[in-house]
Amino acid sequence: MRTDTVRLLISCPDTRGIIAAVSSFIALHSGNIVELDQHTDDSSDRFFMRVEIETAGFGLSRETFAPAWGPLAQRFGMEWRIAWGEDLKRIALFVSKESHCLHDLLLRWKSQELRAQIPLVVSNHPDLSEAAAGAGVRFVHLEIQGGDRAAQEDRIAALMHEHRVDLLVLARYMQVLSPALVARFPQRIINIHHSFLPAFAGPKPYHQAFDRGVKIIGATSHYVTDVLDDGPIIAQQTAAVGHRDSVQDLIRKGRDLERVVLAQAVRLHLDDKILVGGQRTVVFE
Amino acid sequence: MRTDTVRLLISCPDTRGIIAAVSSFIALHSGNIVELDQHTDDSSDRFFMRVEIETAGFGLSRETFAPAWGPLAQRFGMEWRIAWGEDLKRIALFVSKESHCLHDLLLRWKSQELRAQIPLVVSNHPDLSEAAAGAGVRFVHLEIQGGDRAAQEDRIAALMHEHRVDLLVLARYMQVLSPALVARFPQRIINIHHSFLPAFAGPKPYHQAFDRGVKIIGATSHYVTDVLDDGPIIAQQTAAVGHRDSVQDLIRKGRDLERVVLAQAVRLHLDDKILVGGQRTVVFE
Amino acid sequence: MRTDTVRLLISCPDTRGIIAAVSSFIALHSGNIVELDQHTDDSSDRFFMRVEIETAGFGLSRETFAPAWGPLAQRFGMEWRIAWGEDLKRIALFVSKESHCLHDLLLRWKSQELRAQIPLVVSNHPDLSEAAAGAGVRFVHLEIQGGDRAAQEDRIAALMHEHRVDLLVLARYMQVLSPALVARFPQRIINIHHSFLPAFAGPKPYHQAFDRGVKIIGATSHYVTDVLDDGPIIAQQTAAVGHRDSVQDLIRKGRDLERVVLAQAVRLHLDDKILVGGQRTVVFE
Amino acid sequence: MRTDTVRLLISCPDTRGIIAAVSSFIALHSGNIVELDQHTDDSSDRFFMRVEIETAGFGLSRETFAPAWGPLAQRFGMEWRIAWGEDLKRIALFVSKESHCLHDLLLRWKSQELRAQIPLVVSNHPDLSEAAAGAGVRFVHLEIQGGDRAAQEDRIAALMHEHRVDLLVLARYMQVLSPALVARFPQRIINIHHSFLPAFAGPKPYHQAFDRGVKIIGATSHYVTDVLDDGPIIAQQTAAVGHRDSVQDLIRKGRDLERVVLAQAVRLHLDDKILVGGQRTVVFE
Repeated sequence: MRTDTVRLLISCPDTRGIIAAVSSFIALHSGNIVELDQHTDDSSDRFFMRVEIETAGFGLSRETFAPAWGPLAQRFGMEWRIAWGEDLKRIALFVSKESHCLHDLLLRWKSQELRAQIPLVVSNHPDLSEAAAGAGVRFVHLEIQGGDRAAQEDRIAALMHEHRVDLLVLARYMQVLSPALVARFPQRIINIHHSFLPAFAGPKPYHQAFDRGVKIIGATSHYVTDVLDDGPIIAQQTAAVGHRDSVQDLIRKGRDLERVVLAQAVRLHLDDKILVGGQRTVVFE
Repeated sequence: MRTDTVRLLISCPDTRGIIAAVSSFIALHSGNIVELDQHTDDSSDRFFMRVEIETAGFGLSRETFAPAWGPLAQRFGMEWRIAWGEDLKRIALFVSKESHCLHDLLLRWKSQELRAQIPLVVSNHPDLSEAAAGAGVRFVHLEIQGGDRAAQEDRIAALMHEHRVDLLVLARYMQVLSPALVARFPQRIINIHHSFLPAFAGPKPYHQAFDRGVKIIGATSHYVTDVLDDGPIIAQQTAAVGHRDSVQDLIRKGRDLERVVLAQAVRLHLDDKILVGGQRTVVFE
Repeated sequence: MRTDTVRLLISCPDTRGIIAAVSSFIALHSGNIVELDQHTDDSSDRFFMRVEIETAGFGLSRETFAPAWGPLAQRFGMEWRIAWGEDLKRIALFVSKESHCLHDLLLRWKSQELRAQIPLVVSNHPDLSEAAAGAGVRFVHLEIQGGDRAAQEDRIAALMHEHRVDLLVLARYMQVLSPALVARFPQRIINIHHSFLPAFAGPKPYHQAFDRGVKIIGATSHYVTDVLDDGPIIAQQTAAVGHRDSVQDLIRKGRDLERVVLAQAVRLHLDDKILVGGQRTVVFE
Repeated sequence: MRTDTVRLLISCPDTRGIIAAVSSFIALHSGNIVELDQHTDDSSDRFFMRVEIETAGFGLSRETFAPAWGPLAQRFGMEWRIAWGEDLKRIALFVSKESHCLHDLLLRWKSQELRAQIPLVVSNHPDLSEAAAGAGVRFVHLEIQGGDRAAQEDRIAALMHEHRVDLLVLARYMQVLSPALVARFPQRIINIHHSFLPAFAGPKPYHQAFDRGVKIIGATSHYVTDVLDDGPIIAQQTAAVGHRDSVQDLIRKGRDLERVVLAQAVRLHLDDKILVGGQRTVVFE
């Protein structure tokens, strides 16, 4: 993960000349492109592009970029955003009782595999406070008191604001977020679901998988939307299982998938490698 | 695939002493066990077992086995069957227009990878007659005339009877069999579905997968039951896909999965390695 | 596989502004870029690029491209080539006795999955003549007579010339080509080796794998160079095996890998998606 | 992982009647077989068997088993051992500077996924003392002083003796054990090697893999023998890589493989599911 680059993400109606216009613009401003990816989605005729430019030598700054870039963006009807790699994103990890994804993300973070700031861990249970403490991260226990989910979510929103959180990672957080909360963080909440979606959405997917008698299990990381387990998929992996595997074995094998698939999604997001078009993601790996 | 063995398949309520009783019975009749597999399904407390015995030297024959074995089977409340490896199973292949699974099975059969007899290929379209002819297999075109599916299925049943067919393989046969026909061949009809079931059951699974934006596709072979794409799963495999893959790419990549997963199920069935318990299979690979 | 595009492949020392220069050049000549991929190899500081442009509307032709492009190419010290998608590449398939890769490639070709011309199949054995005939392809049996390999290779070279062959595919051709012959077709001979190279180079890799007791087997497609099984790798896949698998089982399971991995390499080559840098390939999938 | 069973492991020349004799012996002593696996290695004509019996109700004890079993074992020329599941095995973890395998094993152990005792972590570097301490495990830093490896290994042997260690797990321990030390713990030292052996044995396998330009990387867990990276393989997994992956990416992706593959080997060993025949393992998963 490089932090010495700036990433420009674009989507717009497909037409001729976009790449030339964008790369010439960057060249004009002395930018050195270290990575350029583009994709045209034929089903929607939409063009997606990601350009990664070395910050050193680039003639535009946070202040001057938008004014310079604006006319070109307007010409092509672009939706766009720019992310400066040196701005480490700020992550809040949400957990319940399962610890493996939390441990995994914290270890990857400690070993610099994930370049980010993690100011806090939020949970609806107190169980994992020690894991957070061990990594030197603040742990906030936010119970839903008297069934008042709205009050709990207000506190969540306040915490996110207070800690200037960019990305919410639901690391086996067994609580459904309300549409109101989700709407505040579009494409900025990542969830891990422990099945190969769309199979086995909803609760207890490993039990569902066992009962159905499947020969593969899976895990899916996706952006959270209003509809449960239905958001744009970022990454998926599967593993073979057999008749000898009990539900407990599925859970155990699944944990290894969940850790890898969630970490992969977080890394891709931190590197600004994901663009969303409808219910599908463009992932420039 | 050995043809010089006899395979004994058992399922019964779990209790003590089954393995000892069975293996002693076989030893008593001079049978040499070359493979013994057993499994207890804890969720149903049911015991499954497969024993493969060398035909040479085994003291029991087709005529004498059942009377000798009966009392023991009764004592344990067994459902059981015995299959003589030298009796090559007789397969009818059902196809529509897609040729890859048909070609694949015929080539594996020609190269002795599948040990069976294939007396006929049945289709509701004439397109693949040449492929069957190339392998020296009779091709029967059974149109559904005037929407009279019952009449077509009567002809199918008659053909199966005439050719003493043991196993119906739906190798991308795009026609749903009626419950009446399915009931005649319990656990003797294998289908390939081009998705990782239970995701994307029904028609056009690759289109469904594309629209959902999954990052893996799959294929599933299963026994056919009354409920569409819902029978006990025999084998599944998945492959990674990405945003660059169009529906056509999914179809292309999926074909490679389908061929392998269907051939795997057919081989396992021919080797009598599959036992069914409810909606799940015990596969003694 | 599109045939309505032209593909420009470039490698040169890494420096600033290449993408802008190339994409502007194309825009200047009214080219519509449908795919642009680039990669900088940090270990060699070399830049690789592939641009795919719609033929329709592109202002340069076979005659005019090189003169127009030359100055830019020279400025950046580029090695480059251009391939017109409408020019179907001409493939010669080389086989010995194993038929699965030959059948597989011919079936993919027949079903338009591979867009190419296949004027001939060459073999040092007569066994597979029927398979070639079934697909309507000329079969040439080139025995090595009296140990005179040079004479056989002269005939090969003559055949390649006569049939204007662009690509030699060794589809389980159990004969080592001489350095002289290899030198005539740099990066234009693709071989399938039945192991995950560099493990088990040389003869009988499945036997080697069995003896070593590995838990995975693999297959590798690569460009042929002077050193046996040592050329740049294009694609690899692996499959799980276990103690129950005999050498024959490894061979059987391996065949499924070989078919897929060889077809993948051929498709990538036909689509001009492979660039070679030293012993490594850049594959723009 | 069950601890309420006893596991009997057998290998002997293949002959008739072994399964019947063993299962009858167990039935005679009121043992309830919960798992029986057997395998005949045709290349060596050797028979391998694992029987798992419920401790409850089994009529033989630690004292009485061997005398009762002896004659039968002798009759078939068996090598055999028995392991009581309630005897948690005692593991010493060996590490150097890389922390991911250590963290992973400790977390699996803490979450009861691995049922064992871990009395100590041994290292030739002080770096990971905190990780051990965090899990409440003694950390012993054993430097090689003045190049005197023999002295260090004497201390290792003494520690293993003192802590009654059953299994040594080299969790990225970057030190080669001497033949003398290895000889003390036959099939009781498990190593993780960060390549798909036999490819890239020896140091820096990810660098080797990068230089060779492979499209898959792997990890291998194996028992340690006198020859470096040459012992019987227990488990292997691979992952896809591409031209965009730097050596650092290979290392990162490889870590996920190493963790899973090492944990898998340790679990199989703790469950007494591995038998060794020559350079190959029989793994009754």
